[in-house]
Amino acid sequence: MSGLTVFSDDHFMKVALREAERALEEDEIPVGAVIVCQNKVIAKGYNHTEKLTDVTAHAEMLAITSAENYLSSKYLNDCTLYVTLEPCVMCAGALHWTQIGRVVYGASDLQRGYSLLTENVLHPKTKVSSGIMEQECRQLINTFFKRLRGKE
Amino acid sequence: MSGLTVFSDDHFMKVALREAERALEEDEIPVGAVIVCQNKVIAKGYNHTEKLTDVTAHAEMLAITSAENYLSSKYLNDCTLYVTLEPCVMCAGALHWTQIGRVVYGASDLQRGYSLLTENVLHPKTKVSSGIMEQECRQLINTFFKRLRGKE
Repeated sequence: MSGLTVFSDDHFMKVALREAERALEEDEIPVGAVIVCQNKVIAKGYNHTEKLTDVTAHAEMLAITSAENYLSSKYLNDCTLYVTLEPCVMCAGALHWTQIGRVVYGASDLQRGYSLLTENVLHPKTKVSSGIMEQECRQLINTFFKRLRGKE
Repeated sequence: MSGLTVFSDDHFMKVALREAERALEEDEIPVGAVIVCQNKVIAKGYNHTEKLTDVTAHAEMLAITSAENYLSSKYLNDCTLYVTLEPCVMCAGALHWTQIGRVVYGASDLQRGYSLLTENVLHPKTKVSSGIMEQECRQLINTFFKRLRGKE
């Protein structure tokens, strides 16, 4: 047997979850992201906002910068972003500029998710799937906030 | 005579315009931004999306990262952003996270400006002024696109 193994959404979300776990280890809100192109992970990122003291250092933003650098292209039409938490408005706005083909997220963000807006701020060509490994993604966030409350 | 000279919005927008001119010189869409805190410019930035092949490298994003680094704070409550073109959704989303005190922009962006959305995506505490040195700001953009069409 030879040929290309096509991985499932669960497979790539697990890679994003490992990124989110790295954020948790570093006391960041645990969000992880990967960008996949032709069945291959071309970029990874996890939330660095505390370490870098930079609100723009969300997992998705770092992954976008990295993927565009890798492809030498501002456009990610043939790529899929996997992210453990629904993107915020900033990240959705960035994703619009990339014209990314597909966005897959785990847990919804009921406070700051882009889907709370009336208009769709993603690119009209971008397909969206949500709820992939939702429980595992949410569990990490809950662990973070439980730990934070324990410190207060 | 001694004491603090309080500069006008025009004064700081001129600094942002000089940043935009640097972008124009480098064949980038000419947008420039400065962040001012207590009457002092603490960060500057101009559009680097082409040079860096990175959609996240808008003038405002670079200025936010720089200002937060300078202040060692994720919050810019006491700061004002001056930017030559109305922020896009990505930049407005980033500005929300910073809780910036005030946003002043020159020209409106009728294609991609954040104010085209139904909801206000800036922080509710953020004050906004627009149309400051609008003509000069728009002129730079027009020069860029005229030059681009000349190359086609």
